[in-house]
Amino acid sequence: MNPAEFRQQVRQGGFHGPTAGHCGEFAQANLVILPQAQADDFLRFCLFNPRACPLLGIGEPGSWAVPQLGRDLDLRTDVPGYCVYRDGRLAQEVTSLEALWQEDFVTFAIGCSFSFEQMLQQAGIPLRHLEEGRNVSMYRTSIRNRPAGPFAGELVVSMRPMKAADAIRAIQITSRFPGIHGAPVHFGDPALIGIGDLGRPDFGDAVTILPGEVPVFWACGVTPQSALRGAGLPLAITHKPGHMLITDIPNATLAIF
Amino acid sequence: MNPAEFRQQVRQGGFHGPTAGHCGEFAQANLVILPQAQADDFLRFCLFNPRACPLLGIGEPGSWAVPQLGRDLDLRTDVPGYCVYRDGRLAQEVTSLEALWQEDFVTFAIGCSFSFEQMLQQAGIPLRHLEEGRNVSMYRTSIRNRPAGPFAGELVVSMRPMKAADAIRAIQITSRFPGIHGAPVHFGDPALIGIGDLGRPDFGDAVTILPGEVPVFWACGVTPQSALRGAGLPLAITHKPGHMLITDIPNATLAIF
Repeated sequence: MNPAEFRQQVRQGGFHGPTAGHCGEFAQANLVILPQAQADDFLRFCLFNPRACPLLGIGEPGSWAVPQLGRDLDLRTDVPGYCVYRDGRLAQEVTSLEALWQEDFVTFAIGCSFSFEQMLQQAGIPLRHLEEGRNVSMYRTSIRNRPAGPFAGELVVSMRPMKAADAIRAIQITSRFPGIHGAPVHFGDPALIGIGDLGRPDFGDAVTILPGEVPVFWACGVTPQSALRGAGLPLAITHKPGHMLITDIPNATLAIF
Repeated sequence: MNPAEFRQQVRQGGFHGPTAGHCGEFAQANLVILPQAQADDFLRFCLFNPRACPLLGIGEPGSWAVPQLGRDLDLRTDVPGYCVYRDGRLAQEVTSLEALWQEDFVTFAIGCSFSFEQMLQQAGIPLRHLEEGRNVSMYRTSIRNRPAGPFAGELVVSMRPMKAADAIRAIQITSRFPGIHGAPVHFGDPALIGIGDLGRPDFGDAVTILPGEVPVFWACGVTPQSALRGAGLPLAITHKPGHMLITDIPNATLAIF
Protein backbone atom coordinates (compact mmCIF):
# COMPACT_ATOMS: atom_id res chain seq x y z
CA MET A 1 0.00 0.00 0.00
CA ASN A 2 1.43 3.39 -0.93
CA PRO A 3 0.97 6.48 1.28
CA ALA A 4 -2.00 7.80 -0.76
CA GLU A 5 -3.76 4.43 -0.48
CA PHE A 6 -2.96 4.25 3.24
CA ARG A 7 -4.41 7.73 3.80
CA GLN A 8 -7.54 6.76 1.85
CA GLN A 9 -8.00 3.80 4.16
CA VAL A 10 -7.65 6.05 7.20
CA ARG A 11 -10.04 8.60 5.68
CA GLN A 12 -12.68 5.93 5.14
CA GLY A 13 -12.47 4.79 8.76
CA GLY A 14 -10.59 1.57 8.01
CA PHE A 15 -7.55 2.28 10.17
CA HIS A 16 -7.23 4.01 13.56
CA GLY A 17 -4.06 2.46 15.02
CA PRO A 18 -0.45 3.56 15.46
CA THR A 19 1.36 4.06 12.17
CA ALA A 20 4.76 2.55 13.11
CA GLY A 21 5.76 0.01 10.49
CA HIS A 22 3.33 1.26 7.82
CA CYS A 23 4.67 2.64 4.49
CA GLY A 24 8.14 2.36 6.01
CA GLU A 25 9.98 4.04 3.13
CA PHE A 26 7.97 7.26 3.46
CA ALA A 27 8.38 10.03 6.02
CA GLN A 28 5.87 10.15 8.84
CA ALA A 29 5.18 13.52 10.42
CA ASN A 30 4.23 15.04 13.76
CA LEU A 31 1.31 17.38 13.28
CA VAL A 32 0.56 20.70 14.97
CA ILE A 33 -2.53 22.67 13.95
CA LEU A 34 -3.03 26.19 15.33
CA PRO A 35 -5.16 29.25 14.68
CA GLN A 36 -3.26 31.79 12.61
CA ALA A 37 -3.04 34.17 15.58
CA GLN A 38 -0.45 31.85 17.17
CA ALA A 39 1.03 30.39 14.00
CA ASP A 40 3.71 33.03 13.46
CA ASP A 41 5.10 32.55 16.96
CA PHE A 42 5.03 28.79 16.51
CA LEU A 43 6.84 29.04 13.17
CA ARG A 44 9.57 31.09 14.85
CA PHE A 45 9.72 28.51 17.65
CA CYS A 46 10.32 25.76 15.07
CA LEU A 47 13.03 27.77 13.30
CA PHE A 48 14.72 28.58 16.63
CA ASN A 49 14.73 24.91 17.68
CA PRO A 50 15.34 23.05 14.44
CA ARG A 51 16.65 19.82 15.95
CA ALA A 52 13.43 19.28 17.91
CA CYS A 53 11.12 20.86 15.31
CA PRO A 54 12.40 20.13 11.79
CA LEU A 55 9.67 21.39 9.46
CA LEU A 56 8.66 19.07 6.63
CA GLY A 57 5.80 21.29 5.53
CA ILE A 58 3.51 24.21 6.43
CA GLY A 59 -0.07 24.57 5.25
CA GLU A 60 -1.71 27.70 3.89
CA PRO A 61 -4.15 29.25 6.40
CA GLY A 62 -7.43 27.37 6.31
CA SER A 63 -6.17 24.71 3.93
CA TRP A 64 -6.36 21.01 4.75
CA ALA A 65 -4.45 20.18 1.59
CA VAL A 66 -0.65 20.51 1.66
CA PRO A 67 0.63 19.29 -1.73
CA GLN A 68 4.26 19.26 -0.57
CA LEU A 69 3.29 16.56 1.96
CA GLY A 70 0.98 14.44 -0.17
CA ARG A 71 -1.27 14.51 -3.19
CA ASP A 72 -5.00 14.46 -2.38
CA LEU A 73 -4.13 15.02 1.27
CA ASP A 74 -6.98 15.92 3.62
CA LEU A 75 -5.50 16.86 6.99
CA ARG A 76 -8.95 16.67 8.61
CA THR A 77 -9.35 12.94 8.02
CA ASP A 78 -6.08 11.33 6.93
CA VAL A 79 -4.43 10.94 10.36
CA PRO A 80 -5.58 7.94 12.43
CA GLY A 81 -6.06 10.01 15.61
CA TYR A 82 -6.01 13.63 16.78
CA CYS A 83 -5.69 15.29 20.19
CA VAL A 84 -7.63 18.50 20.77
CA TYR A 85 -6.21 20.81 23.43
CA ARG A 86 -8.19 23.62 25.01
CA ASP A 87 -6.44 26.04 27.37
CA GLY A 88 -3.39 23.78 27.31
CA ARG A 89 -5.26 20.66 28.43
CA LEU A 90 -6.23 17.58 26.44
CA ALA A 91 -9.97 18.07 25.91
CA GLN A 92 -10.80 15.41 23.34
CA GLU A 93 -9.40 12.63 21.18
CA VAL A 94 -11.03 12.41 17.76
CA THR A 95 -10.53 10.57 14.47
CA SER A 96 -11.73 13.42 12.27
CA LEU A 97 -11.38 17.21 12.38
CA GLU A 98 -14.27 17.83 9.96
CA ALA A 99 -16.52 19.23 12.70
CA LEU A 100 -13.70 21.29 14.26
CA TRP A 101 -11.91 22.75 11.25
CA GLN A 102 -11.56 26.55 11.18
CA GLU A 103 -10.81 28.90 8.31
CA ASP A 104 -7.76 30.23 10.19
CA PHE A 105 -6.10 26.87 10.96
CA VAL A 106 -2.43 26.60 10.01
CA THR A 107 -0.81 23.16 9.90
CA PHE A 108 2.81 22.35 10.72
CA ALA A 109 4.27 18.96 9.78
CA ILE A 110 7.39 18.14 11.79
CA GLY A 111 9.85 15.33 10.99
CA CYS A 112 9.67 12.11 12.98
CA SER A 113 12.31 9.65 14.14
CA PHE A 114 10.42 6.72 12.58
CA SER A 115 12.19 7.77 9.38
CA PHE A 116 15.73 7.58 10.69
CA GLU A 117 14.97 4.37 12.56
CA GLN A 118 14.38 2.77 9.18
CA MET A 119 17.83 3.99 8.08
CA LEU A 120 19.44 2.62 11.25
CA GLN A 121 17.82 -0.76 10.80
CA GLN A 122 18.93 -0.94 7.18
CA ALA A 123 22.48 -0.34 8.47
CA GLY A 124 22.14 -3.34 10.78
CA ILE A 125 21.95 -1.33 14.00
CA PRO A 126 19.66 -3.07 16.52
CA LEU A 127 16.94 -0.89 18.06
CA ARG A 128 16.07 -2.19 21.50
CA HIS A 129 12.55 -0.76 21.76
CA LEU A 130 11.58 -2.48 18.50
CA GLU A 131 13.21 -5.75 19.64
CA GLU A 132 11.24 -5.53 22.89
CA GLY A 133 8.00 -4.44 21.23
CA ARG A 134 7.84 -1.18 23.16
CA ASN A 135 7.59 2.52 22.44
CA VAL A 136 10.88 4.41 22.38
CA SER A 137 11.92 5.90 25.76
CA MET A 138 11.49 9.68 25.95
CA TYR A 139 12.65 12.09 28.66
CA ARG A 140 12.31 15.74 29.57
CA THR A 141 15.75 17.34 29.82
CA SER A 142 17.18 20.45 31.45
CA ILE A 143 18.09 21.87 28.00
CA ARG A 144 15.90 24.95 27.54
CA ASN A 145 14.31 25.62 24.18
CA ARG A 146 14.86 29.02 22.62
CA PRO A 147 11.48 30.64 23.27
CA ALA A 148 9.21 32.40 20.77
CA GLY A 149 6.05 34.14 22.01
CA PRO A 150 4.20 31.76 24.33
CA PHE A 151 6.26 28.73 23.22
CA ALA A 152 9.19 27.75 25.45
CA GLY A 153 9.87 24.82 27.78
CA GLU A 154 12.61 22.22 27.70
CA LEU A 155 13.90 19.84 25.07
CA VAL A 156 12.40 16.34 25.11
CA VAL A 157 14.70 13.59 23.84
CA SER A 158 14.25 10.02 22.68
CA MET A 159 16.85 7.48 23.83
CA ARG A 160 18.22 4.40 22.09
CA PRO A 161 20.87 2.24 23.83
CA MET A 162 23.70 1.13 21.53
CA LYS A 163 27.24 -0.17 21.50
CA ALA A 164 29.72 2.67 20.89
CA ALA A 165 30.60 1.47 17.38
CA ASP A 166 26.89 1.41 16.44
CA ALA A 167 26.43 4.84 18.03
CA ILE A 168 29.24 6.25 15.88
CA ARG A 169 27.58 4.78 12.78
CA ALA A 170 24.19 6.08 13.94
CA ILE A 171 25.65 9.58 14.33
CA GLN A 172 26.95 9.39 10.76
CA ILE A 173 23.62 8.17 9.40
CA THR A 174 21.35 10.58 11.25
CA SER A 175 23.63 13.55 10.51
CA ARG A 176 22.52 13.17 6.89
CA PHE A 177 18.89 13.82 7.93
CA PRO A 178 18.49 17.19 9.65
CA GLY A 179 14.85 17.12 8.46
CA ILE A 180 14.14 14.23 10.82
CA HIS A 181 15.96 15.48 13.94
CA GLY A 182 19.50 14.95 12.60
CA ALA A 183 22.42 13.87 14.79
CA PRO A 184 22.04 13.02 18.48
CA VAL A 185 22.22 15.87 20.97
CA HIS A 186 23.95 13.80 23.67
CA PHE A 187 25.18 10.35 24.63
CA GLY A 188 26.39 8.79 27.85
CA ASP A 189 25.70 10.21 31.31
CA PRO A 190 22.00 11.17 31.40
CA ALA A 191 22.49 13.42 34.45
CA LEU A 192 24.46 15.87 32.28
CA ILE A 193 21.22 16.79 30.48
CA GLY A 194 19.03 16.62 33.57
CA ILE A 195 17.68 13.09 33.26
CA GLY A 196 17.49 11.41 36.66
CA ASP A 197 16.56 7.80 35.94
CA LEU A 198 16.64 6.12 32.53
CA GLY A 199 14.38 3.41 33.93
CA ARG A 200 11.56 5.95 34.35
CA PRO A 201 10.95 7.72 31.03
CA ASP A 202 8.56 10.69 30.96
CA PHE A 203 6.96 9.36 27.76
CA GLY A 204 7.02 5.95 26.08
CA ASP A 205 8.42 2.83 27.72
CA ALA A 206 11.61 1.88 29.54
CA VAL A 207 13.90 -0.49 27.60
CA THR A 208 16.76 -2.76 28.61
CA ILE A 209 20.26 -1.27 28.50
CA LEU A 210 22.85 -4.03 28.23
CA PRO A 211 26.41 -3.95 29.62
CA GLY A 212 28.73 -2.17 27.19
CA GLU A 213 25.92 -0.05 25.74
CA VAL A 214 25.59 3.71 26.03
CA PRO A 215 22.33 5.66 25.89
CA VAL A 216 22.18 7.90 22.81
CA PHE A 217 19.77 10.85 22.88
CA TRP A 218 18.04 12.53 19.93
CA ALA A 219 15.87 15.64 19.96
CA CYS A 220 12.27 14.47 19.86
CA GLY A 221 9.06 15.65 18.22
CA VAL A 222 7.34 15.56 21.61
CA THR A 223 9.24 18.81 22.34
CA PRO A 224 6.88 21.02 20.29
CA GLN A 225 3.85 19.22 21.71
CA SER A 226 5.16 19.87 25.20
CA ALA A 227 5.77 23.54 24.35
CA LEU A 228 2.27 23.70 22.91
CA ARG A 229 0.70 22.43 26.12
CA GLY A 230 2.86 24.83 28.12
CA ALA A 231 1.62 27.76 26.05
CA GLY A 232 -1.93 27.15 27.27
CA LEU A 233 -3.55 28.26 24.00
CA PRO A 234 -7.34 28.39 23.81
CA LEU A 235 -7.26 25.82 21.01
CA ALA A 236 -4.56 23.62 19.49
CA ILE A 237 -4.65 20.27 17.74
CA THR A 238 -1.95 17.61 17.34
CA HIS A 239 -1.79 14.07 16.04
CA LYS A 240 -2.42 11.42 18.71
CA PRO A 241 1.00 10.11 19.90
CA GLY A 242 2.21 7.37 17.57
CA HIS A 243 -0.63 8.05 15.12
CA MET A 244 1.31 10.05 12.54
CA LEU A 245 0.61 11.63 9.19
CA ILE A 246 2.14 9.41 6.50
CA THR A 247 3.48 11.68 3.76
CA ASP A 248 4.43 11.03 0.13
CA ILE A 249 8.03 12.07 0.92
CA PRO A 250 10.46 9.13 0.57
CA ASN A 251 12.78 9.11 3.59
CA ALA A 252 15.75 8.71 1.27
CA THR A 253 15.04 12.09 -0.37
CA LEU A 254 15.55 13.85 2.98
CA ALA A 255 19.28 13.03 3.01
CA ILE A 256 21.31 16.24 2.63
CA PHE A 257 24.25 14.33 1.17
CA MET B 1 56.40 29.02 4.63
CA ASN B 2 54.70 26.60 2.23
CA PRO B 3 55.32 22.83 2.32
CA ALA B 4 57.94 22.94 -0.47
CA GLU B 5 59.85 25.68 1.35
CA PHE B 6 59.56 23.79 4.64
CA ARG B 7 60.93 20.62 3.05
CA GLN B 8 63.82 22.61 1.54
CA GLN B 9 64.67 23.87 5.01
CA VAL B 10 64.65 20.31 6.37
CA ARG B 11 66.71 19.09 3.42
CA GLN B 12 69.37 21.74 4.07
CA GLY B 13 69.68 20.74 7.72
CA GLY B 14 67.84 23.77 9.07
CA PHE B 15 65.08 21.89 10.90
CA HIS B 16 65.13 18.60 12.81
CA GLY B 17 62.23 18.99 15.27
CA PRO B 18 58.69 17.69 15.51
CA THR B 19 56.43 18.98 12.73
CA ALA B 20 53.25 19.62 14.78
CA GLY B 21 52.02 23.13 14.10
CA HIS B 22 54.03 23.61 10.88
CA CYS B 23 52.22 24.19 7.55
CA GLY B 24 48.99 23.48 9.43
CA GLU B 25 46.73 23.54 6.38
CA PHE B 26 48.62 20.74 4.64
CA ALA B 27 48.45 17.01 5.33
CA GLN B 28 51.29 15.49 7.28
CA ALA B 29 52.05 11.83 6.69
CA ASN B 30 53.37 8.80 8.51
CA LEU B 31 56.12 7.18 6.47
CA VAL B 32 56.94 3.51 6.00
CA ILE B 33 59.81 2.51 3.68
CA LEU B 34 60.33 -1.17 2.87
CA PRO B 35 62.25 -3.32 0.41
CA GLN B 36 59.99 -4.40 -2.43
CA ALA B 37 60.06 -8.02 -1.22
CA GLN B 38 57.81 -7.01 1.70
CA ALA B 39 55.99 -4.15 0.04
CA ASP B 40 53.15 -6.16 -1.49
CA ASP B 41 52.24 -7.69 1.84
CA PHE B 42 52.40 -4.30 3.49
CA LEU B 43 50.16 -2.80 0.84
CA ARG B 44 47.60 -5.51 1.45
CA PHE B 45 47.91 -4.85 5.21
CA CYS B 46 47.08 -1.18 4.62
CA LEU B 47 44.11 -2.01 2.42
CA PHE B 48 42.84 -4.56 4.96
CA ASN B 49 43.11 -2.02 7.82
CA PRO B 50 42.14 1.27 6.21
CA ARG B 51 41.18 3.12 9.37
CA ALA B 52 44.64 2.64 10.88
CA CYS B 53 46.54 2.80 7.57
CA PRO B 54 44.84 5.26 5.20
CA LEU B 55 47.17 5.55 2.21
CA LEU B 56 47.90 9.07 0.99
CA GLY B 57 50.51 7.92 -1.48
CA ILE B 58 52.77 5.07 -2.62
CA GLY B 59 56.16 5.53 -4.25
CA GLU B 60 57.48 3.69 -7.29
CA PRO B 61 60.16 1.11 -6.35
CA GLY B 62 63.47 2.86 -5.84
CA SER B 63 62.02 6.34 -6.21
CA TRP B 64 62.46 9.01 -3.58
CA ALA B 65 60.20 11.34 -5.49
CA VAL B 66 56.44 10.90 -5.13
CA PRO B 67 54.76 13.70 -7.11
CA GLN B 68 51.31 12.98 -5.67
CA LEU B 69 52.71 13.91 -2.23
CA GLY B 70 54.81 16.93 -3.14
CA ARG B 71 56.63 18.60 -6.00
CA ASP B 72 60.45 18.34 -5.79
CA LEU B 73 60.03 15.86 -2.94
CA ASP B 74 63.13 13.93 -1.85
CA LEU B 75 62.06 11.28 0.63
CA ARG B 76 65.70 10.69 1.63
CA THR B 77 66.15 14.15 3.11
CA ASP B 78 62.84 15.97 3.52
CA VAL B 79 61.66 14.40 6.77
CA PRO B 80 63.20 15.82 9.98
CA GLY B 81 64.00 12.39 11.44
CA TYR B 82 63.96 8.71 10.46
CA CYS B 83 64.02 5.46 12.45
CA VAL B 84 65.88 2.52 10.95
CA TYR B 85 64.71 -0.90 12.11
CA ARG B 86 66.78 -4.04 11.64
CA ASP B 87 65.27 -7.43 12.52
CA GLY B 88 62.33 -5.61 14.10
CA ARG B 89 64.44 -3.51 16.45
CA LEU B 90 65.27 0.17 16.35
CA ALA B 91 68.88 0.20 15.16
CA GLN B 92 69.49 3.84 14.34
CA GLU B 93 67.92 7.30 14.22
CA VAL B 94 69.10 9.40 11.28
CA THR B 95 68.26 12.71 9.62
CA SER B 96 69.06 11.54 6.09
CA LEU B 97 68.58 8.30 4.19
CA GLU B 98 71.11 9.17 1.46
CA ALA B 99 73.62 6.61 2.71
CA LEU B 100 70.95 3.95 3.24
CA TRP B 101 68.74 4.24 0.16
CA GLN B 102 68.22 1.09 -1.89
CA GLU B 103 67.02 0.63 -5.43
CA ASP B 104 64.19 -1.61 -4.20
CA PHE B 105 62.77 0.73 -1.53
CA VAL B 106 59.01 1.34 -1.70
CA THR B 107 57.55 4.23 0.27
CA PHE B 108 54.11 4.34 1.86
CA ALA B 109 52.67 7.63 3.10
CA ILE B 110 49.86 7.12 5.62
CA GLY B 111 47.44 9.83 6.78
CA CYS B 112 48.01 11.46 10.15
CA SER B 113 45.63 12.80 12.79
CA PHE B 114 47.42 16.17 12.82
CA SER B 115 45.22 16.96 9.81
CA PHE B 116 41.89 16.29 11.47
CA GLU B 117 43.00 18.00 14.67
CA GLN B 118 43.22 21.19 12.64
CA MET B 119 39.62 20.64 11.50
CA LEU B 120 38.46 20.01 15.08
CA GLN B 121 40.15 23.16 16.34
CA GLN B 122 38.59 25.22 13.56
CA ALA B 123 35.22 23.90 14.75
CA GLY B 124 35.96 25.19 18.25
CA ILE B 125 36.48 21.76 19.82
CA PRO B 126 39.15 21.95 22.58
CA LEU B 127 41.96 19.37 22.32
CA ARG B 128 43.31 18.65 25.78
CA HIS B 129 46.79 17.42 24.77
CA LEU B 130 47.38 20.67 22.87
CA GLU B 131 46.04 22.74 25.78
CA GLU B 132 48.40 20.87 28.11
CA GLY B 133 51.35 20.97 25.73
CA ARG B 134 51.64 17.19 25.57
CA ASN B 135 51.65 14.48 22.94
CA VAL B 136 48.32 12.81 22.30
CA SER B 137 47.65 9.70 24.43
CA MET B 138 47.96 6.43 22.49
CA TYR B 139 47.07 2.91 23.59
CA ARG B 140 47.38 -0.64 22.34
CA THR B 141 43.93 -2.26 22.12
CA SER B 142 42.61 -5.81 21.99
CA ILE B 143 41.22 -5.17 18.47
CA ARG B 144 43.19 -7.42 16.15
CA ASN B 145 44.32 -6.12 12.79
CA ARG B 146 43.44 -8.17 9.72
CA PRO B 147 46.82 -9.75 8.96
CA ALA B 148 48.68 -9.79 5.64
CA GLY B 149 51.88 -11.79 5.30
CA PRO B 150 54.11 -11.00 8.29
CA PHE B 151 52.06 -7.92 9.27
CA ALA B 152 49.49 -8.41 12.02
CA GLY B 153 49.22 -7.23 15.62
CA GLU B 154 46.58 -5.10 17.32
CA LEU B 155 45.06 -1.73 16.59
CA VAL B 156 46.69 1.25 18.31
CA VAL B 157 44.35 4.17 19.03
CA SER B 158 44.79 7.81 19.95
CA MET B 159 42.46 9.23 22.60
CA ARG B 160 41.00 12.70 23.00
CA PRO B 161 38.68 13.49 25.94
CA MET B 162 35.62 15.56 25.00
CA LYS B 163 32.16 16.54 26.10
CA ALA B 164 29.51 14.40 24.38
CA ALA B 165 28.22 17.27 22.22
CA ASP B 166 31.80 17.96 21.01
CA ALA B 167 32.33 14.24 20.41
CA ILE B 168 29.20 14.11 18.21
CA ARG B 169 30.52 17.09 16.21
CA ALA B 170 33.98 15.48 16.06
CA ILE B 171 32.44 12.28 14.67
CA GLN B 172 30.70 14.32 11.96
CA ILE B 173 33.88 16.21 11.08
CA THR B 174 36.27 13.26 11.03
CA SER B 175 33.81 11.08 9.10
CA ARG B 176 34.46 13.39 6.16
CA PHE B 177 38.16 12.43 6.20
CA PRO B 178 38.65 8.67 5.76
CA GLY B 179 42.11 9.50 4.36
CA ILE B 180 43.20 10.69 7.79
CA HIS B 181 41.77 7.88 9.94
CA GLY B 182 38.11 8.93 9.57
CA ALA B 183 35.54 8.54 12.34
CA PRO B 184 36.42 7.27 15.82
CA VAL B 185 36.44 3.52 16.38
CA HIS B 186 35.15 3.74 19.96
CA PHE B 187 34.19 6.07 22.78
CA GLY B 188 33.47 5.60 26.46
CA ASP B 189 34.54 2.56 28.47
CA PRO B 190 38.19 1.86 27.57
CA ALA B 191 38.00 -1.70 28.96
CA LEU B 192 35.67 -2.66 26.07
CA ILE B 193 38.62 -2.35 23.68
CA GLY B 194 41.19 -3.80 26.05
CA ILE B 195 42.64 -0.62 27.53
CA GLY B 196 43.32 -1.02 31.24
CA ASP B 197 44.30 2.44 32.46
CA LEU B 198 43.83 5.67 30.54
CA GLY B 199 46.38 7.29 32.87
CA ARG B 200 49.13 5.04 31.49
CA PRO B 201 49.23 5.35 27.71
CA ASP B 202 51.47 2.99 25.73
CA PHE B 203 52.69 5.89 23.58
CA GLY B 204 52.55 9.66 24.03
CA ASP B 205 51.49 11.35 27.26
CA ALA B 206 48.60 11.06 29.70
CA VAL B 207 46.17 14.00 29.66
CA THR B 208 43.55 15.26 32.08
CA ILE B 209 40.01 13.94 31.65
CA LEU B 210 37.50 16.32 33.25
CA PRO B 211 34.14 15.36 34.79
CA GLY B 212 31.47 15.10 32.11
CA GLU B 213 33.99 14.19 29.41
CA VAL B 214 34.22 10.89 27.57
CA PRO B 215 37.37 9.45 26.00
CA VAL B 216 37.03 9.24 22.21
CA PHE B 217 39.31 6.80 20.37
CA TRP B 218 40.58 7.05 16.79
CA ALA B 219 42.63 4.50 14.86
CA CYS B 220 46.23 5.67 14.94
CA GLY B 221 49.16 5.67 12.53
CA VAL B 222 51.28 3.98 15.17
CA THR B 223 49.37 0.79 14.26
CA PRO B 224 51.36 0.11 11.06
CA GLN B 225 54.62 0.98 12.83
CA SER B 226 53.75 -1.50 15.55
CA ALA B 227 52.88 -4.16 12.95
CA LEU B 228 56.16 -3.38 11.20
CA ARG B 229 58.19 -3.99 14.36
CA GLY B 230 56.18 -7.16 15.01
CA ALA B 231 57.04 -8.46 11.54
CA GLY B 232 60.75 -8.47 12.43
CA LEU B 233 61.88 -7.58 8.91
CA PRO B 234 65.62 -7.45 8.18
CA LEU B 235 65.27 -3.77 7.24
CA ALA B 236 62.48 -1.21 7.52
CA ILE B 237 62.47 2.56 7.86
CA THR B 238 59.85 4.91 9.29
CA HIS B 239 59.66 8.58 10.17
CA LYS B 240 60.74 9.40 13.72
CA PRO B 241 57.56 9.72 15.87
CA GLY B 242 56.15 13.25 15.57
CA HIS B 243 58.62 14.10 12.79
CA MET B 244 56.31 13.75 9.84
CA LEU B 245 56.49 14.25 6.10
CA ILE B 246 54.72 17.50 5.25
CA THR B 247 52.95 17.03 1.92
CA ASP B 248 51.55 19.49 -0.63
CA ILE B 249 48.06 18.07 -0.07
CA PRO B 250 45.73 20.63 1.54
CA ASN B 251 43.82 18.93 4.37
CA ALA B 252 40.60 20.41 3.01
CA THR B 253 40.95 18.48 -0.26
CA LEU B 254 40.82 15.18 1.65
CA ALA B 255 37.16 15.72 2.59
CA ILE B 256 34.97 13.15 0.81
CA PHE B 257 31.93 15.45 0.99
